[in-house]
Amino acid sequence: MPKAKPVYQCGLDAAVDVVGGKWKPLILWALHERTHRFGELRRELVAVSEKVLIQQLRELEADGIVHREVYREVPPRVEYSLTELGEALNRALEPLGAWGETYMQEIIERKTKECAV
Amino acid sequence: MPKAKPVYQCGLDAAVDVVGGKWKPLILWALHERTHRFGELRRELVAVSEKVLIQQLRELEADGIVHREVYREVPPRVEYSLTELGEALNRALEPLGAWGETYMQEIIERKTKECAV
Repeated sequence: MPKAKPVYQCGLDAAVDVVGGKWKPLILWALHERTHRFGELRRELVAVSEKVLIQQLRELEADGIVHREVYREVPPRVEYSLTELGEALNRALEPLGAWGETYMQEIIERKTKECAV
Repeated sequence: MPKAKPVYQCGLDAAVDVVGGKWKPLILWALHERTHRFGELRRELVAVSEKVLIQQLRELEADGIVHREVYREVPPRVEYSLTELGEALNRALEPLGAWGETYMQEIIERKTKECAV
């Protein structure tokens, strides 16, 4: 069913619509390092279910971030990589990763305190 | 109920845990411009429900990103602003916003095509 054309309030709104959620930034990070087969991604993102990972990869593919290459072998081999758009998105995520790295201890302490209240 | 201490795979994982979801980056963006009262935030983020906005602000406050100042007036005035940690997070989101700005047209076209398939 056709949905309405999305309306974004700003660039960040559009970016979050593409990369939002817990898993997509981590998928980008993994694919930025190198091309991955599905099973490899599954092993790196240990806490994600197969169903959710498939869905996230489909959305990233439809959004032009991830390229899915099917090699006609027996059994067929499927590899995921970043498109140019995906590489640019990954670069744009780098400062966010650096922020998380810098403040990780503080984030963990606060999250733990929240839970204990 | 105490939850387990969070375990992050990398800085980006930690950052996404703090700023993940559709609304939090937009809240940061708004508060970075200036201090907001609740009603002002509500009007700027037109599509968010009151309940969700309250929940997101509480989480951002607990995570040390947003400061909530209550002025003992009649009726009481409540203002939200960014902490230093929040300002640093907002700066880290800037390249992501710029990416979204640059590719907004492409994102909209792809999202519209997805829906029409």
